[in-house]
Parts: sequence; C-alpha cells; structure tokens
Amino acid sequence: MAEKGVPIKEPKGKLGILLPGLGAVGSTMIAGVEMVRNGYARPIGSLTQMATIRLGKRTEDRTPMIKDFVPLANLDDIVFGGWDIFPVNVYESALNAKVLTKDDLDKVKPQLDAIKPMKAVFDKKYVKRLDGPNKKVGKNKMDLAEQLMDDMANFKKENNLDRIVIVWSGSTETYIEYDPVWDTLESFEKAMRENHDAISSSMIYAYAALKSGIPYANGAPHMTHDIPALEELAKKNNVAIAGKDFKTGQTFMKTLLAPGLKARMLGVHGWFSTNILGNRDGEVLDEPLSFKSKEVTKLSALEYIFQPKKNPELYGDLYHKVRINYYPPIGDNKEAWDNIDIFGWLGYPMQIKVDFLCRDSILAAPVALDLALFIDLAQRAGMSGIQEWLSFYFKSPIVGKGLYPEHDIFIQLMKLKNTLRHLKGEDLITHLGLEYYD
Amino acid sequence: MAEKGVPIKEPKGKLGILLPGLGAVGSTMIAGVEMVRNGYARPIGSLTQMATIRLGKRTEDRTPMIKDFVPLANLDDIVFGGWDIFPVNVYESALNAKVLTKDDLDKVKPQLDAIKPMKAVFDKKYVKRLDGPNKKVGKNKMDLAEQLMDDMANFKKENNLDRIVIVWSGSTETYIEYDPVWDTLESFEKAMRENHDAISSSMIYAYAALKSGIPYANGAPHMTHDIPALEELAKKNNVAIAGKDFKTGQTFMKTLLAPGLKARMLGVHGWFSTNILGNRDGEVLDEPLSFKSKEVTKLSALEYIFQPKKNPELYGDLYHKVRINYYPPIGDNKEAWDNIDIFGWLGYPMQIKVDFLCRDSILAAPVALDLALFIDLAQRAGMSGIQEWLSFYFKSPIVGKGLYPEHDIFIQLMKLKNTLRHLKGEDLITHLGLEYYD
Amino acid sequence: MAEKGVPIKEPKGKLGILLPGLGAVGSTMIAGVEMVRNGYARPIGSLTQMATIRLGKRTEDRTPMIKDFVPLANLDDIVFGGWDIFPVNVYESALNAKVLTKDDLDKVKPQLDAIKPMKAVFDKKYVKRLDGPNKKVGKNKMDLAEQLMDDMANFKKENNLDRIVIVWSGSTETYIEYDPVWDTLESFEKAMRENHDAISSSMIYAYAALKSGIPYANGAPHMTHDIPALEELAKKNNVAIAGKDFKTGQTFMKTLLAPGLKARMLGVHGWFSTNILGNRDGEVLDEPLSFKSKEVTKLSALEYIFQPKKNPELYGDLYHKVRINYYPPIGDNKEAWDNIDIFGWLGYPMQIKVDFLCRDSILAAPVALDLALFIDLAQRAGMSGIQEWLSFYFKSPIVGKGLYPEHDIFIQLMKLKNTLRHLKGEDLITHLGLEYYD
Amino acid sequence: MAEKGVPIKEPKGKLGILLPGLGAVGSTMIAGVEMVRNGYARPIGSLTQMATIRLGKRTEDRTPMIKDFVPLANLDDIVFGGWDIFPVNVYESALNAKVLTKDDLDKVKPQLDAIKPMKAVFDKKYVKRLDGPNKKVGKNKMDLAEQLMDDMANFKKENNLDRIVIVWSGSTETYIEYDPVWDTLESFEKAMRENHDAISSSMIYAYAALKSGIPYANGAPHMTHDIPALEELAKKNNVAIAGKDFKTGQTFMKTLLAPGLKARMLGVHGWFSTNILGNRDGEVLDEPLSFKSKEVTKLSALEYIFQPKKNPELYGDLYHKVRINYYPPIGDNKEAWDNIDIFGWLGYPMQIKVDFLCRDSILAAPVALDLALFIDLAQRAGMSGIQEWLSFYFKSPIVGKGLYPEHDIFIQLMKLKNTLRHLKGEDLITHLGLEYYD
Repeated sequence: MAEKGVPIKEPKGKLGILLPGLGAVGSTMIAGVEMVRNGYARPIGSLTQMATIRLGKRTEDRTPMIKDFVPLANLDDIVFGGWDIFPVNVYESALNAKVLTKDDLDKVKPQLDAIKPMKAVFDKKYVKRLDGPNKKVGKNKMDLAEQLMDDMANFKKENNLDRIVIVWSGSTETYIEYDPVWDTLESFEKAMRENHDAISSSMIYAYAALKSGIPYANGAPHMTHDIPALEELAKKNNVAIAGKDFKTGQTFMKTLLAPGLKARMLGVHGWFSTNILGNRDGEVLDEPLSFKSKEVTKLSALEYIFQPKKNPELYGDLYHKVRINYYPPIGDNKEAWDNIDIFGWLGYPMQIKVDFLCRDSILAAPVALDLALFIDLAQRAGMSGIQEWLSFYFKSPIVGKGLYPEHDIFIQLMKLKNTLRHLKGEDLITHLGLEYYD
Repeated sequence: MAEKGVPIKEPKGKLGILLPGLGAVGSTMIAGVEMVRNGYARPIGSLTQMATIRLGKRTEDRTPMIKDFVPLANLDDIVFGGWDIFPVNVYESALNAKVLTKDDLDKVKPQLDAIKPMKAVFDKKYVKRLDGPNKKVGKNKMDLAEQLMDDMANFKKENNLDRIVIVWSGSTETYIEYDPVWDTLESFEKAMRENHDAISSSMIYAYAALKSGIPYANGAPHMTHDIPALEELAKKNNVAIAGKDFKTGQTFMKTLLAPGLKARMLGVHGWFSTNILGNRDGEVLDEPLSFKSKEVTKLSALEYIFQPKKNPELYGDLYHKVRINYYPPIGDNKEAWDNIDIFGWLGYPMQIKVDFLCRDSILAAPVALDLALFIDLAQRAGMSGIQEWLSFYFKSPIVGKGLYPEHDIFIQLMKLKNTLRHLKGEDLITHLGLEYYD
Repeated sequence: MAEKGVPIKEPKGKLGILLPGLGAVGSTMIAGVEMVRNGYARPIGSLTQMATIRLGKRTEDRTPMIKDFVPLANLDDIVFGGWDIFPVNVYESALNAKVLTKDDLDKVKPQLDAIKPMKAVFDKKYVKRLDGPNKKVGKNKMDLAEQLMDDMANFKKENNLDRIVIVWSGSTETYIEYDPVWDTLESFEKAMRENHDAISSSMIYAYAALKSGIPYANGAPHMTHDIPALEELAKKNNVAIAGKDFKTGQTFMKTLLAPGLKARMLGVHGWFSTNILGNRDGEVLDEPLSFKSKEVTKLSALEYIFQPKKNPELYGDLYHKVRINYYPPIGDNKEAWDNIDIFGWLGYPMQIKVDFLCRDSILAAPVALDLALFIDLAQRAGMSGIQEWLSFYFKSPIVGKGLYPEHDIFIQLMKLKNTLRHLKGEDLITHLGLEYYD
Repeated sequence: MAEKGVPIKEPKGKLGILLPGLGAVGSTMIAGVEMVRNGYARPIGSLTQMATIRLGKRTEDRTPMIKDFVPLANLDDIVFGGWDIFPVNVYESALNAKVLTKDDLDKVKPQLDAIKPMKAVFDKKYVKRLDGPNKKVGKNKMDLAEQLMDDMANFKKENNLDRIVIVWSGSTETYIEYDPVWDTLESFEKAMRENHDAISSSMIYAYAALKSGIPYANGAPHMTHDIPALEELAKKNNVAIAGKDFKTGQTFMKTLLAPGLKARMLGVHGWFSTNILGNRDGEVLDEPLSFKSKEVTKLSALEYIFQPKKNPELYGDLYHKVRINYYPPIGDNKEAWDNIDIFGWLGYPMQIKVDFLCRDSILAAPVALDLALFIDLAQRAGMSGIQEWLSFYFKSPIVGKGLYPEHDIFIQLMKLKNTLRHLKGEDLITHLGLEYYD
C-alpha cells in the first residue's frame, strides 16, 4: 500500500496569523503561544505541537511527533495581528476576557502590549448585542474589502512575512437567508458595490483574503466562505479554505458519545443539551437570530452521525433539543449538560447524563492555532479549496458538493492522520492487523 | 487495494450456544432471542443483527447489513443450553434476575421453561459469596472436565447440531496468582488430575471446550484461557478463542471518552470512577478478591489508550481510581459515575462528570450473542487462536505475544469491520477521501 | 404555654372532591385513593394519611398520626367528580397520562370507569396549546358560572354529600395583566356578564365555588382567587381558600436547598434551573405566555427565602434563571437540573449540582389530596379566607395584605404543624429544650 | 410568652482561641479572621458575623445582627494560638494547605508569620497516616496533660487574655472501642498516669482544657469529651463543651435534604454517598480505622432524621452507604456525590442526584469561628456542660443522657436562634401567625 507522497514547499521565513476578532479566543491563543515560546507553559490541546502519529505496523513502534513528520511553521516564526472593534491591545483584551490569570498574562505583557487591533469591518446589523468604536468606514462593501486587502498587504510588508493565513475568531453573526447574489462571484462583487444586505461583515473579510490568495478558516457558525461565490473565488485563486465553527465544548462531547452509542447499535429516543455560559459569546447568542446560526450547526451533528434513514429502528424518532443560556455568574467558564435517553436490548431504556465544566477559550485556542498551521501546510502542499481533512476541528464541516459531512470525531481524526500519512507517502492505517495471528 | 477474500464454510444446520452460568446475562440473552424470533422485540445493541457496513467509496452508497454481508448463523437455527448451580429453568432464572418484565417473559414462557441447566462445575473457593446445589462431583478436576465434554457431546447429538460455541456468562472468580502449572498443556493436565488449586472452575470449562474443538469466549475478568497451557491447546486443536470481560457500562463509556480526550490532546490529571449496582454480580464483587479480578481489567483500559509513556506531559501523572459498591436498592440497574479532571491549553483545568444509568444485562446480552455468532464465523473461516478483531466486545482484550491490547472502541470497531471487509475481499476503509477534492 | 384549642365540626357524612381538570394529576390522585381504599398501595407523600405530629416534650414521646389528632374526613367517605374538556372517564384519562401502570389501574378499573367528566368551562384564549370537545356553552361568563353552580349542587344532591371542596388540577392558563374589573366583587360580576377578557375560565370556577360556599384550592400558577374581587367574596361568604401552584419538583427542591444555604450564611451568585418534561403540562408551558405565569411563581421563591435586602453581601447580586423545556421522550417523568454557584468564607466559590429525576403527578397527587382534606378541616374549624398555614403545599403561597409569603419549606411545615397543635390546644413547639441541661 | 432573659457577663478584654491542629482548617480560619479584620474580605458563612435574627412578629420588622443582639467577643479582641506536629508558622501552613491563594495570604503575612505552633501531644497510634517532629515528650499521659495546662496558662499570661476557648481542628483519630477506664474521672486519671491505650491524644487536650476551666469544642468525629469521665469533669468545673465533627460538605447537604423529604413524607429506599477529596484529611481517612470514626458519625444523621421506627413504611428498609475516597488530583477541593432512591404516591420510584463541589476548609473555617465565639458566650452566660443548642454545627451532636440528637439542620437552627432569644428574654418564634387571618 506504500505511496509516494506529495511535494510540499518548505515553511521558510515568517508566517503571519491574522485574526478578525481579538477577543477571548484570539487573545488566549496569542498569549498562549507567547507563553509557550518563552517556556512558561505547554500548548496542551494542540495536535500540531503535542501529538504523535503512528507509522507502519504496531510492532515497528514508529510514532514521531506530527511537527517532526510534516513541515509545519515553527511557533518562533509566527507573527500575530488582527482587527477588532475595541481599540485595546491584546494584553488588555486578554485581561478583560478573564480566561487567563493576570499572573500568567504579566509574564508576556510586553509582547501582548505590542499587538494592537486594526480597524474592523463591522455592522451591528449582523451582531445585534455588540458594538464598538474601532471601525472602518467606506463607500460600500467593496471599498471596505479593499481596505482590508491593504491591511493584509501592509501587515505582510511591515513584518517581512513569507505567508499569511486568516482564522476568524470573532463573534457569531446572525442567521441570514439564502440570497441569489451569493450564487456567482460576479453577482457577489456587484452586490458588494451595491452594499447588499445579504453580504455580512465576515464575508467581506473572506473575500479580501481569498482575493489576496490568503487561506481562510472560519471559527464561527455563520455563512462565510461556504457560499458558491466564495468557493468559486477560492478555486480560481487556488486558495485553501476550511470551516466552520470551532468544535469545542458540548458538540465536541457529542461527537464522542454519539459514535460510541452507534458503534454498539444502542438506540436513542432523545437528546437534550443545555449550555450555560457567561462570556461575550453567551451574550451574543442570547439574541435569537445569532442563536439560530449556532443551532443549525449544533443540531446537524447527530443527524449525520446516527444516519436515521439507514438506522430507522434506532434513531428514527430521535428528539434532539439544544439550548444556550446566558448566565453571567460563571464568566468564560461554560457548563454543558446533556441528558441522553438511550435504549438497548429489546428496547429497554437507559440514560446518560454528562456535565462538562469546560472553558470555552481554553478549548478553542489550540484549535485556532492548529487550523492556522495546517491550512498553511495545505496551501504549501498545493491543496486548494475545501480542506475536508480538517473537519476534525469543526462543529459543521463544510464539504464538497454531493458529499455528506463527517461528524464522528474518530473518523475525522483518522481522515486527518491518514491525510498526513498520504502527504508523506506512508502506508495508510486500517487497523486490520490479521498478520499477527494465524 | 482490492483483496480476494477468504473461503468461509456455510453455516448450514443448527448452532448450539452453551452458557456456563444461566443467571441475569444468560437468561436475558436467551429470552431476548426468543422474543426476537417471535417478533415481540428487536435485538437492539447487536451488530450481527442490526448493524450495516459501508463498502467502497462514500459515493457508492453500499451499506449492506452485516448479517447479509458475511455468512452468520441465523437466529432461527440457534439452540440454547447451559450449566448453573441453581436448578431452575431459564424462565424462573429470568424472573429472579428482574431484568425483563414478567409481561415480556410470559410471551416466551414455554421456550424458556424448556431450558434446564445441566449440573455445574463449581467450587466456592473461587466465588466466595455464592453457592448452590446443582453441582457435579468428580474424582478430580480432569474427571470434571470429562463430564463436561460428555455434556457437550450429548447436547450436540440430542439436538442434532452442526456446531457448538461456548460463551462464559457466569460470575467473576477471585483473582488467582500466576502458577507454573499454567505454563504448558502437559503441566496443566497433570495439575488437573492432582486437583491443583491454581486451576479454577472456569478453566475446566475452557479446557473441556477446547479439547472438544469448540470455540470459547470469556465474558468475565478472571484468567481462563488466557494462560499459556490453554492457548497452546487452542492452537493445537485449531479452535477460536476470545476474551475477556464483556465491555458494558462504565468501561464502555471510558473507552469512548478517553480516545476522545486523547484525540484532542487534552491532558488528564485524575479519573475517579464509582459504580453502584444491586444484582448478584454486585454482591460477588463486594468480595475483595473477586473485585481484584475486576479492578485489573477495569484499570488497564486508560493505560493503553492514553499511552503515558508516549505522552508524559498529558497523562504521566494520571491518578485513576475505580470503585464498585454493592447497593441493593437498584437491583440489576447499575449506575456508573465518573469524575474526570482534565486540563487544556497552558494547563488550565476543566472537569467532566458522567452519570450512566445503565442496565448491566441489557448491555451484556447483545454482546454475548454477537460473540457467539462471530466466533462461530471465525471458526468456519479457519481463523483459530485469539480473535483480536473481537476486542471491541471486551474490557480486557487478550492479544498475541508482544502486542499491546487495543482499548479504543473506535479503533476496535474499525478493526472489526475491516476484518469483515477483508474476509469478503472488499477494500479496507481508510477515510482518506482526497479524491473528492482537487 | 398550653392553649384551649378551637371548636371543630365533626366530619360526618360524605365529602365530595371536585376537580376542574381530570388529567394526569387528577386521575393519579383519584386512582391512588381508590387503590389505597382497597389495600393495593399506600398513600406515600400524604401528610394527612402518613405523617405523625410530635406533641409536648421530646421525652414524653407523644407522636400520634395527624389523622388521629385532628378530625379529618376519612378516605372511605370521599366521592370524586370533576370537569374536563376531554369526554373520557378517569380510567381512560389515567391510561393516557401514562403515570400509573396499566396493571395498577386495572385493579380499580370499575371505580375509575364510573367517574365521567362534566362539561368544562374552557376558552382556548387562556390555554393556547390545548382544546377539546367537552365544553359548556353559555350566553356569557356569568351564565357559565351559574351552570357550574348547578353542577355543584346536583353533584351534592345526587351523591348525598355533606360537604364539597374544589381543587384546581387543570392546565396552567396564560399570564393576564391586572385589570380594574378585578378590584371589587361588583365590577367583577358586571364584567362576567359582559364577557370581559380579563376573566379567565379558572376565575369562573372559583367564583362559582365561593358563591356556593365551597372551599377552593388552586394548584396552578395563574391568577384565580388571588384577586381582590374573589378575596372579597370568600370573606363575605366565610369560605376558606388556598393557593397557588402545587409545589412539586424543582421548586420543592429549591425551597429545601435555599433555606439550608441561608441557614449557614453561604452566599449565592447564581442559580440556574432547567426542567425537561414531556407531558401535557410541558406542552402547555412551551407556550411563552403560559410559561410566564409559571416563571413568576418559580422565580419568587428565592427572593423571599434569601431576603437580599437584609443580606445584600450574600444575595444582593444573585442571578436566577429558570427554564422549562418540552421534551417528549420522557413523558410524565420530569427532570429538574439545577446549578448553584455559591460562595463561602472570604468569598471563595463552590458549586452544587442537583438532578431530580422526578415524576410530576406522583408528587402532585398527595398534595392535591392533603389540600382537599385540610381545607375541609379549615372550613369546619371556622377558618375562612386565605389559609396561610397551607403555604407548605404551594410554589407561590398567597398571603394577607401587608405580609410577605413564606417559602422556606421548614418554616412552612412548622407553621402547618403548630396550627394543628393550636387547633387542638397543645403547646406550640419551639425546639428550645434548655430544660434538659443545666 | 415574653421572658426575662439570662444574665451574661460582658466580653471585656481579650479572648484567646487555641487550636490543637494548625493545618488546613485552622490556618484558613486564622488567615480569614486576619483578612476580615483588615478589610480584605468578608466572613461569609459565619452566623456570628453575618446573620440576623428576627424578633417579635413579622410585621414588627425587627431583625438585628446576631452580634448586635447578644454580647459576643469582637473579632478585634481575638488572639490565636495552637499546637501542631509540624513546626511551621501559620503562613507556611496555609500555603501548604493550598486553600487560600498566595495572593490573599500575602496580605496578612506578618500576622500569620507570627503564629508559631506549640509542641503537640501526638501519638501515631491514633492517626496512622501522619507524623511530624514537633511533639512533646513526657513520663506519661498525665504528665503530657500537665504540660498542656502550662501552655494554656502561659498563653493567657503572655497575651494578657481575659478568657480562652479551645476548638479541636486537628486530624481524625482512629476509632477506639469503649473501655471501662472512661467511666469515671477517677479511673480516667489513673489510666492517664498508667499510659493506658484507651486514652487518645485528643482526650489529653480535652482533659487539660476542662481541668483549666476552658470551654472545649470538638471538630473531629473521634471520641473526646463525650465519655463519662470528661463529662463529669466538665460538670464539676462548670465548663461548656460542644461536639462533635464539624458539619460541612456532604453531611451538611444530607441534613438539608433528608428533612425536606421527610417533611413531604416521601419514602427512601436507598442513599448512596461517596466523597472524593485530596487533602491531608482525605489521606488520613483512607486508613480504615480512621474512616470508621467518621463513618459512625456520617451514618447516624439519616437514622435520627427519618426515625424509621416511627415511619417504617417510608424508611424501614433504607439502605445507606457512605464512602470516602482519597483522590489527590483535587487537593483541598472535595466532591460529595449522592444518589438518593426515593418513592412517592403508591410507592412509585424517583431519584435525586446531588453533586456538591465544595471546599472542605472554606466550609469549616466559619464553623470553627462561630463555635469559639458561641461557646465563649455560653460560658459567660453560665451555661455549662453539653451545649445542645450548638448541634447546628456538628455532624454528630452530643446530647444529654436519655435524649436523642437532633440532626435536622432547620430544627437545629431554630433551637440555636430560640436559645439566643431566650437568653435575651425575647419571645420564642413558633411561626403560628394565625393572628393575621380571621
């Protein structure tokens, strides 16, 4: 089964990571990388930094670090930047977010002080519970996009960068209905010049990135580059894209548990999920239209994992309900509570209760970092368009036409690792292993 | 990657399933199969009866039922029998177990009334909290084994069977220290004739089975055929063996959650697991030496999944504690409560609490059925010795020399399904799927 | 401290209990009483049937049953009746409710078959998710009230009753804003004749009862007799009234826990409560205006128990959120999950999680029975108007003008028991007990 | 019902609080008082500092602070001292305990540095998992007691104190069987001189205190002054005593929940309680004999609250199991998990799960402070011997001969508050309140 591998450009020079949104997730990611660079902490949760990959047969015992196996950008070669509607530097932003302790932040204060947000493209119409002063003004949406492209080009020049990637780590925008202007790049560009409502702020960022040939990953649930016009642009410019919505707390847990129940052919009558969270994200999602964006991505996971059409006796009547509740007392902490009504042998009922006392930004930061490094790898390996092998990181993986998204986190991980093996010409792992027995 | 497949004998005629132990698990399995045969209920939880298997590419949409893909014995061709120290028929045993409702049992009463236990080989020395009157007497352990072999032969003849398999569904025996008599078949047989203490009752069953060429699966955690002498016998007689300890409640959950945490490189400081259960199994495990058998199998899963030596920063200091508490008020219901202390980005702590309100025998019954059918398949496919591909069903999978057991339930499932694909000459699944993108 | 007691009429003859609403709660209560009368089960959860009351000093060891201490109607002397929009008898209604097993209901089928609902006064305007065919028609609301009074009088005559009490056990009506027509009996009666929207169906029942001199308890959260007009009528006719909203699952738990936290002066930052339930009540409360009725009664308990104005450092910033979610998979079962963020010594935080897997009607049925028997006692003891001593049973106790409601279940219990002691001229209990020490 | 009240000596001058054991609880209490004195934090959880007491009728609205109502020692007049086997000052001890943050401790470092432990009386025989170097040596146990009396006298003189109280805040000693030497003061003193094994270290402290006329409260579960010899000594010297075992995490929760279930006459089939904790206390209790001391006090609460003899149908078959598990990953945090199997109307089952993520020393510190201040009040009010009104603070309240202990935390609170009202000649509260209704 040996393969030859794929030629990959070496990651020489510096990599810029630009973040639209320098709030809790962005500042936690940046502060963490600075702490790791300086030896104060370890990048727990990051596959690019911590994980190994098994190669060959079990008995060969070959398991290098992923970062030693594929040519990733080194943490020391990263330069951070971003846009935000609040004109405070990353140190202050991280303090406000209350994710990391002041004690930790103070260790890398000079580095964080130095990162100041560029003026953001923002329209309260798409994020109703939020507003801030540090915003661009422009004649129309195309003009705003051009300002962003200038930002990107200047950032690259000023920091003497070899490459840039962009990871959306801003707030969730409201749900927008399909509009025909999304259908082609031409109609989309026309609509931008006409300031059409169907073009949200995040789409302007994505357009600017793809137009500049910059890979783009979307960490929020709203529609961005998963519209035909922007997929067309990505393809045309040979740019890698990935999305959408970082898979962190409850959906992460759900995509563990559901494949496990299905592995054993245990039926599910009902799945009730509630979240309580007290940060800015919780406040934004307390608004019904923003929640709708989220709900769509949150509900779909079970549908795809359980395949009720193929398993109607087990999952045909599954009642799935997801709630998010803004609850200020717990701040950036988040609590995800699930009640799962399952049934086994002869239909006898059982229940599973899970309470995940998690921390939103602590879970999201390494995901954002990995996406930046892997999408840069993909671009250097000549893989353009949708990077399905990065589904592992997303609540709602975008996929090619005619395919269904894969939500099972274990299949996603196998897809990711076998993609890396494939890139390097190693045997893919099937876990057959019959050769050890007679 | 297409393969040619393996020749498999057709499952013509009847298959006998013999169970040492006709208590809660055994009677629930038998009563369930009778209900299913008669259209009263569905065999939820059984892969052989309910699961599909994906073949070829995602876009081919080929997903037959497993039972239509590989030649398994049909439920209608099964004849049940077994041994037990209590001389009550399976209907009464199932009533006592209080797992299935009387209403359900009454639907198949005649069939259950007809199954009466043969006299058991039993010595209270190995199961301290239990005793009963329906026991064999013999000159020595070899004599007892010969009586069992006669039982097996008679059962086959009287029921006009084509084949027999045996699945241990009796109580957990106490922990026994290694003894040199286990080392070779010769020393083992000598020890049987000398009534050696290191030979437990379950080993006598296994010996009798393997000597008779009957495949044997072990659903309990004690040592049985996983000693060199019996592995030697299995190899010599070309018999399939599998074990050990049905993976049902808390360990099932653990082997879902742990791979998920590891997938994301989240660290774990501590894992506390407690069980409360009120059935006969709980009573037996309240005895410290029986619990020790269990504890060993329960503790090992995390060790193998997390690989602390390869991931010392994440799992090097994991404190893992497992407790089982006999708690009569809940009867055969079982509650498995876990507290998991994890840490993410920069070492920041989080917690997961899981409460699994499960039912022991409801989870174990389909496992016992699948093992019986799959081990019969293996035998007909000429696969002898340890069936590692059935690790999916076990808390403590036995493996070949020099290999480590695989505990990750998702890898186990892939191993099981790729084994089936291999048997039938289908492509193994790798989830690469790059061909859909450019 | 000895007192003389209060003269109480003996409960001779038969007592009619009429229930507006013969759904889950009503049918469970009636079926249960029939089962208890016939020796099939015990009235667990009922103080009138099961509880003792301590009299005198601890060392006297005088603790009679409450039913032997005060003159309550005997279960054998009760006759049940009621109104419902569904024209099915109580046996069928109980079957539909799926609270009690068919096996149990069949034991008292003839008695339950015999109870058929009278035509209900019902207007979908006040219960939006519900409708049924068995309804009265009338010229206006006063006409409907007169029809109900006829029902009551006929029921008394036909069953040869000595007395009647009414306990509302129907659905929750929507929240209604204050309207001036509620202010006096005169304006209220005028409004009835004019079919005014501010007069809900439940108010028509209450008016009919009070007008007929029949004590009335309200088991739902909507406004009924807690409006000035009806309080005036109760006073004028010397009728006992009590309400409102049976205290069963989560609020019951809350009024245990909150007094305990306050007892120890532990602070509370946040209290998040969510309910999942799958019965008709859940469906009705899924409608926002009906939920508003409920939310008001559910939120107030903590406010009164914690007294944030008297304890601003501990409870001044308490964030309290209550959610109810309709979740069909669990039927009449109900799950109430609470997360409580508390703080102790020097402000250090802690958390309490409670998961109450309760059963709505199982908790409500004995409450409905006790209220019927106690309000009958009150009426015979000459206690008219609001029965504050029955606050023990209500989520939102109604109280006299200028008083605050007592929500602490332990103070409520002491109030109830000291009222009984007072009625019988026994010393009130203060738990001082210094006389035992020197 | 008005009473005259009791004469109480004013708390003039300074009060010494001596603690045998300056570990987690002791250091947290001392550091907290220092922080409170200096305005850095509030003494949450302390009734003496934070609670109000309602006087007269509800409508009078008289609710002074307890500390303004009865003459308690002022926090500014307290001087702390103690004994410990580890010769480190309270600042270091508190740092080691990891209860309070270093940031908080540094605010009062000079005060804490100044408190150094005196040499302890300690014998590893009674606390098997612990040992340390800072110990007294003596000819026999009487000699050790005399050394302690000298310590007490010197501490009083050196600090120019008016009064001293002692609160045991050291480790739990092993369970000791009854021995006849406990029966009289004479036999006890003889046994001390003979170094009898039945006299534990904590008894030596209690003897020394009572002999010196110093009130003594016992915060641990072992036998100390609740043996006849020491009760005799307390009576003879007119000294107040109180005990035993601070009621903090799970038992605190249990004595909230159980009275609530009983209030509603809900039956209980089973109650399973498990604790995980990772501090020194957890390590000590991992030793079976120390756990036995604890188990006895932990199990008794339900027995006394439910009174199964008076309520056999509800609590006659209650299966109660308590487990404590040493689990280092959570340090001084403690997690108390309860599963309660209850039943209601007609015997239908329900369940309650409680997970209390508490902090041992945070809950215990204000209890220790209150006990010190209240036992000093009792002594000044001339109340000697067992202070049953302080049962509120104890897992296993000691009581006079022939009485049963009261475990219901609400009755305990009423007893405490009515005792204060009695001391000051105020009406006792009965919650009758009929005067507000007609």
